[in-house]
Formats: sequence, structure tokens, C-alpha cells
Amino acid sequence: MFRFERPVRFVEVDAARIVFFGRFCDYCHDALEALFERLDGGYPRLTMVRDIGVPTVHIAFDFKAPLRYGDVALVDVEVLRIGERSIGFRHTLTRKADQVVCAVAHHVVVTARISRIETVPIPDDLRALLGEHLA
Amino acid sequence: MFRFERPVRFVEVDAARIVFFGRFCDYCHDALEALFERLDGGYPRLTMVRDIGVPTVHIAFDFKAPLRYGDVALVDVEVLRIGERSIGFRHTLTRKADQVVCAVAHHVVVTARISRIETVPIPDDLRALLGEHLA
Amino acid sequence: MFRFERPVRFVEVDAARIVFFGRFCDYCHDALEALFERLDGGYPRLTMVRDIGVPTVHIAFDFKAPLRYGDVALVDVEVLRIGERSIGFRHTLTRKADQVVCAVAHHVVVTARISRIETVPIPDDLRALLGEHLA
Amino acid sequence: MFRFERPVRFVEVDAARIVFFGRFCDYCHDALEALFERLDGGYPRLTMVRDIGVPTVHIAFDFKAPLRYGDVALVDVEVLRIGERSIGFRHTLTRKADQVVCAVAHHVVVTARISRIETVPIPDDLRALLGEHLA
Repeated sequence: MFRFERPVRFVEVDAARIVFFGRFCDYCHDALEALFERLDGGYPRLTMVRDIGVPTVHIAFDFKAPLRYGDVALVDVEVLRIGERSIGFRHTLTRKADQVVCAVAHHVVVTARISRIETVPIPDDLRALLGEHLA
Repeated sequence: MFRFERPVRFVEVDAARIVFFGRFCDYCHDALEALFERLDGGYPRLTMVRDIGVPTVHIAFDFKAPLRYGDVALVDVEVLRIGERSIGFRHTLTRKADQVVCAVAHHVVVTARISRIETVPIPDDLRALLGEHLA
Repeated sequence: MFRFERPVRFVEVDAARIVFFGRFCDYCHDALEALFERLDGGYPRLTMVRDIGVPTVHIAFDFKAPLRYGDVALVDVEVLRIGERSIGFRHTLTRKADQVVCAVAHHVVVTARISRIETVPIPDDLRALLGEHLA
Repeated sequence: MFRFERPVRFVEVDAARIVFFGRFCDYCHDALEALFERLDGGYPRLTMVRDIGVPTVHIAFDFKAPLRYGDVALVDVEVLRIGERSIGFRHTLTRKADQVVCAVAHHVVVTARISRIETVPIPDDLRALLGEHLA
């Protein structure tokens, strides 16, 4: 498991004064960017230099409690499955102050050439890193 | 079915130059805001005056093709189920130029007091409007 | 003058329930994208095919009144100056319902190759279009 | 001076693959949120409990160099002026890797009741904190 801590930003709540559900995708992606920092050059080098990204092919969220401004979200990333060209994650978003689970996501990405959006096998260094966070 | 047309904005693509997957949530919500325009005062009056919103409790996306800057997304909203306090939608996002389906979402919201985030029965005018778009 | 109408979206207000000041930049850019639609292929073709964009080198806003969810902003774009490689705009953002001016911006952009971010002379078709909206 | 470090997020670049100019407002606001953390309860308590925010009345940016995905921005906040109900800041955004200045902003905010958007005198604790960062 990989834990990422993400305070809610002032602009991330909507007119109902709770974090907009689409922003939870940003939180999960921020967590993955943080997880990938252990790669040489991190996600920036993977995407911008090696031309490999992890576009999402599936994501399913169950929302259980709201996040508000002032809350800090803990995003716990678990790797459920490492395929040839795809990766399955479970993200659990918890409100830090009271440990209430706010959302759980199942998330499947593929490894792909960014310039052409065509899948490629998972690179070895990424595969090794993911292996450390298998559920 | 309710169709909503949404050009991709310049800022909505990410570093991979495709629309970030979380922005698809925005597109679906924009479509719902447009659908709710037929209510008296639209979604602004429902939320800001009547204090009733439709927070998301579940959303699941399958992504099939990317959207890029210059594309126009067609968001087709179908109402799958109208419960006592919850509504099920299917959103199909199609690229207008070539009619390629880019994403399909199953989306469940509840009707809730915004000031307290507690559920309430679906108001009659909203129920009637939703009935017109049942799949 | 070019007028662009832009309803405030549900996600664009911040925790203070007013449109975040940075979102006014988005509104101005959306207005420019709409203005550029009269070019062949619009701003998408200019940027993605012809590799020419209009990065901002200066923007100054005076904010006079807030925008809230439910408001519609009218963005009035005037071209103040057309240089060799730069363009000066004034954007006036008015709340549609009561005609209150919410913000005025002075905005200077340059025409630039996107792939290298180096300036180029303003293309003829863009220059002609801008000429129609000189203050 | 107060220094805030802010990596560019994957979603913050636009179709030109540089950070959209409006996102620089977010970076400056994030820096202020970080600066205000030294208040009891930080900016969340100031805004959500004490009902006092700092809406922007003026901001002027000069942009000198782009930020791209992979860059880290250093936001240096200096307090230029502390009035009765208004505060003047200068924000200097530098690219961490090569120390190139990317943007400089002059920023004026007022202290205001959030629920009514009417100005109030700067609270004593905020005034004291700002005094530590006078240019």
C-alpha cells in the first residue's frame, strides 16, 4: 500500500461546498504521480521523455462521505493486478481527522505511448515498483 | 434521452494532450445542469434557493477512445431508474465528428439537502422531468 | 466588440461560494476561443495544425463585484492594439441579470509557435479578424 | 518573504503543453493558503469558522517564461503593504531547476466577511503574521 496525503484546496469545493466528485479523480491521479516519483525522473520523465503514460480505461467510485475545505484526504493506493499492459488499483480515500472513509475506487489503467495512444507492455522499472504495492 | 453538446476547452486536456479522465465527470455534470434547466430556475434555484442538490454516490466509467482539443463531445443522458431518493443515469459520450463512443458512465445520485448533506425524497417537479428521459 | 455569454458552472465557485478569481482567466480565454471560431478551423486548427497559439504575457484584472452560481457572465472583448507579434485586449465581464460590471481586464498576448514557444508575426487571417473588433 | 514550493500537476498544462496562465492564480492562492497555516486553524478556520476571507480586488501578472509538466514552481510571497482592510502582495514565481523567473504578480486582496462579501478590518492575528513577511 502507498499512502498519499492531500489537503483539500480552496478552489476544489463546488457550489454545494463539498469537493466535487470529479476532483476525486484528480486526488487519485495525484497519488499515482506521487507513487511514480520513485521511478528515475518520476512520472514527468516517463510521460514527457519516454513517451509512456497510463491512460484510464475504467474507474468506478463509491462515495460514502463528503470532503470539505479544511479536510485532508488520505489516499491509500493498492495494486490489485499487474497484467501485460494494464494495471488494476484500489484507491481508498479517508478523511484524516476522523478516519471516515469518503470514497473507494477501482481503477484500471493501461500503459500506452502518449504520442499515439496505443498500448505498450508495462516497462520493467514500473512493473518492479508496482510489485512493491500489491494488495 | 437528453443530448448535450460540449466542445472540449483548451484547458481541459492534460500533459498527454487528451481530456483528463476526471474532466469526463465535469462533462456529465454539465449535461445534468443543462437537463435541469427545464425546472423553474434551473439547477441554480434548486441548489441555492431550495437547498436541494444531487450528490453522486456512485459513478463507473468505461473509457474507449480519447477526446482531444478541437473535439466536440455529445453527452447523451438516459434515466435508468428513479427511486425514492436516488436516480440512476447512463451517460454516453460520443465524439461528434466521427460518432466514436469515447466513454460510457453509470451514475447514481441521491437528492439531498445541501446545507446538511442528508437525503430527501425526489421533489415532484424533478421526478416529472426525469420521467421524460427514462431509457 | 465581441460579446461572449458564459454561465457560471457549478464547479467554478470556491469555498467562499463565489467564482474563484483565477477562473476569470478561463472566462476570458473561452471568449477568445469563441472569437477565433471565425478563423478556418477555429482556434483548434490554429493551435494543433498550424502550431500557432497566443500565450499570455500580461494580464491585469480589477475585480468589482462577485459572480455566483446561477449568474451568467457577459464577456465583452475589445481589441485595443494590434502589433507585429502582440495583441492587446480589454475584457469587460458583466453580470447579465443586473448589468453590474464584475471585472475589467487588460490582456496582452503574443503569437507564438506552440512547439517551441517562440514568437511569430500575427498571421494575416487572424490580423483581419482582430481588426473587426478594434475598440 | 515566504517561499512555497509547488510542483506542476499533470492536469495543469493546457493544449499548448504549458501551464495555463489562469493556473498561476491557483499557485499564488495555494501559496497564501500555506502562508496562512500559521494562523490558529489556518485559512480553513479563518474562512469557514470566522467567516473571513481575502477576496482579490486586483491582480496583475507579467509572464516571462513557461512552466511545463515536470517543473517545480517556487512561489515567493512578499507583503508590500498592509492597509486597514486591504493587503498588497508581490508574488515571484521561479522555475526551481534553473532559477528562471516565470512570472511576477502584484496582488491586492481585501479582508471581507465571506457570507456577505463586505470588507472588515484585518484581524490582529493576520496583521501580525503579515508583518513578518513585509518586503
